[in-house]
Amino acid sequence: MTAKPDATRLARAYLSRVAEPFPAALAGLVAQVGPVEAAELVRAGEVSPSVASQTSARRAEERAREDLARVAERGGRLVIPEDDEWPRWPFVALGNARRGEPLALWVRGPLDLAEVVEKAVAVVGSRAASGYGEHVAAEFAYGLADAGVTVVSGAAYGIDGAAHRGALGAGGVTIAVLACGVDFAYPAGHQGLLGKIAREGLIVSEYPPGVTPARHRFLTRNRLIAALGGGTVVVEAGRRSGAKNTAAITLALGRPLMVVPGPVTSASSVGCHELLRDGQAVSVCSVAEIVESVGRFGDDLATEPAEKESELGAPQGEAMRVYEALGKRCGVSDEGVSVESGVPLERVRALLPELELAGLALRLDEGWQRLEVR
Amino acid sequence: MTAKPDATRLARAYLSRVAEPFPAALAGLVAQVGPVEAAELVRAGEVSPSVASQTSARRAEERAREDLARVAERGGRLVIPEDDEWPRWPFVALGNARRGEPLALWVRGPLDLAEVVEKAVAVVGSRAASGYGEHVAAEFAYGLADAGVTVVSGAAYGIDGAAHRGALGAGGVTIAVLACGVDFAYPAGHQGLLGKIAREGLIVSEYPPGVTPARHRFLTRNRLIAALGGGTVVVEAGRRSGAKNTAAITLALGRPLMVVPGPVTSASSVGCHELLRDGQAVSVCSVAEIVESVGRFGDDLATEPAEKESELGAPQGEAMRVYEALGKRCGVSDEGVSVESGVPLERVRALLPELELAGLALRLDEGWQRLEVR
Repeated sequence: MTAKPDATRLARAYLSRVAEPFPAALAGLVAQVGPVEAAELVRAGEVSPSVASQTSARRAEERAREDLARVAERGGRLVIPEDDEWPRWPFVALGNARRGEPLALWVRGPLDLAEVVEKAVAVVGSRAASGYGEHVAAEFAYGLADAGVTVVSGAAYGIDGAAHRGALGAGGVTIAVLACGVDFAYPAGHQGLLGKIAREGLIVSEYPPGVTPARHRFLTRNRLIAALGGGTVVVEAGRRSGAKNTAAITLALGRPLMVVPGPVTSASSVGCHELLRDGQAVSVCSVAEIVESVGRFGDDLATEPAEKESELGAPQGEAMRVYEALGKRCGVSDEGVSVESGVPLERVRALLPELELAGLALRLDEGWQRLEVR
Repeated sequence: MTAKPDATRLARAYLSRVAEPFPAALAGLVAQVGPVEAAELVRAGEVSPSVASQTSARRAEERAREDLARVAERGGRLVIPEDDEWPRWPFVALGNARRGEPLALWVRGPLDLAEVVEKAVAVVGSRAASGYGEHVAAEFAYGLADAGVTVVSGAAYGIDGAAHRGALGAGGVTIAVLACGVDFAYPAGHQGLLGKIAREGLIVSEYPPGVTPARHRFLTRNRLIAALGGGTVVVEAGRRSGAKNTAAITLALGRPLMVVPGPVTSASSVGCHELLRDGQAVSVCSVAEIVESVGRFGDDLATEPAEKESELGAPQGEAMRVYEALGKRCGVSDEGVSVESGVPLERVRALLPELELAGLALRLDEGWQRLEVR
């Protein structure tokens, strides 16, 4: 951002203050005539009834320069679609799902937003989290951050806070997306945490400085969390947790939705288990499984699944050769396995029941069939 | 069973002693010529090489009358395919999957085997279970037994034992399928439990009296557990748990495989989570979900899903009407929802964000879309 804001930035700052996100009609106008002319028309009240309904109450609030200065004082900036830093790709899905690309984003922190969301996962969950949930959120966030994945969350108490802390603990990148101005410490108990995120990560909001949190703003904010993550991990969610809203939006955006299983005796995991049973989410039990589910992170994380496979108990040595020699679609006799694998028949006969016990081989009438490890 | 065993029962008792289950070639011979003639041919050694390989070592063991008497002393009997008590339907899948219908079953207990397996679920898991796993196994088995569902398991320490105890605690029916003779108390620490099962439920084995447990017999036995249950619930399974073998057979038989989620920090749940993530199993968090997954239990359990739905947080009253008025495929405006539901517009506008927060409604540009509870 330049020291002197240009007309486009001023226009978007004005529009960001004037309309409550997400104003579909106003966004349509901006797309049609550009932000500068859209701001002029709004200011003059020369707009369609639908745009007017989104802007008339606040169109006299001319605070663009003041808002930009106020955020700059806190080391922040306004990121707009015209900037290189604008997260273009993550927001394509918002447009496709008609959930609304933001008009602009107020941002604090030393990092380039577009760059850090290239590999990002949202980690969210209940405020009323269990010790188990907070532990897992922190562990997973640590592991993701350590692997170079940005952890996106909402800075709430419970799972969100644990996720941010885990990422910071790994010296990695985390983004807090707020339902209020980026100059606001909400929740109050997270003032220290938010300060650390502003210094080492990014704080992001659609709301101009000074805007206070409100219930509907959390729902609007949740779509940004889902959009900025390449997928969403719900660590814990009660039956009526707000995290289920983020989950629903994640699905609407066509992003992978992941849940962490927990004890069936825990009310904090009920929402996760519902999503799992409904087939809307996949379960993830490790950082490697999250990376595998999100998928598109490229080569530098490619060692993880391989590591995982050996963890999973892929058979070794002779056992591996015997396993490989089993039929994939039908049974193979002991003798056949011996010939194919080059392992002596008596060893084959000793190893096959072990493979069966490990769930890697099925005994059929006509011989042995292979069961895939994954 | 009659006091005087007939020729068919004697023949099958003899064959049960002579061949180690499951002897595919011998079963073929029995299917071809009947059990009495098959026994004669085996006795005389006038059989094909493949049948001979399954019977030659023990064909001189003429202990049919003795075995029948020994089991009768313990209040038991030999159940054969010619009996009304033979579980015909559950074993069809064994034949289809080429996993081998038994030649006969040694049974102790006061109940009719065919009758009690009409509604049955296998509940299995690790010997090295956690307190959580044993608690859930007992709770689920109690609930299933209380709902009139027979609980089938393997009498092992850990999950199996907890499942049997839960079912007995509900005054319900449980079946222990053993990898040794039904006169054997294995494991020794379960002598009391097995005695209670023999008095109130059923103990079942393919092995004649006196046969001791061996590793390969557990694998053979597991297919009976999977076959007698209308589906299998794996409560806990470590990475290399024998329960994964029962799970694999359940799938091979085309039966529903269910797993109970647990903490991702618990080694005892790793096997369950693997099956879940691989898409081989569905998760079950309650008795109602087990009943729903197994499906075919008929009307007397039909109250359960309805009860479950209200538990799941289906909206009530006005909220329900608003929910019902939402678009299933596209958004509906606030006004449209008000007209359709008959709920005043201001109430609609208050309720919609609550539905959104509960994950029941999606806010789109053009209005509100309904999200299904299940």
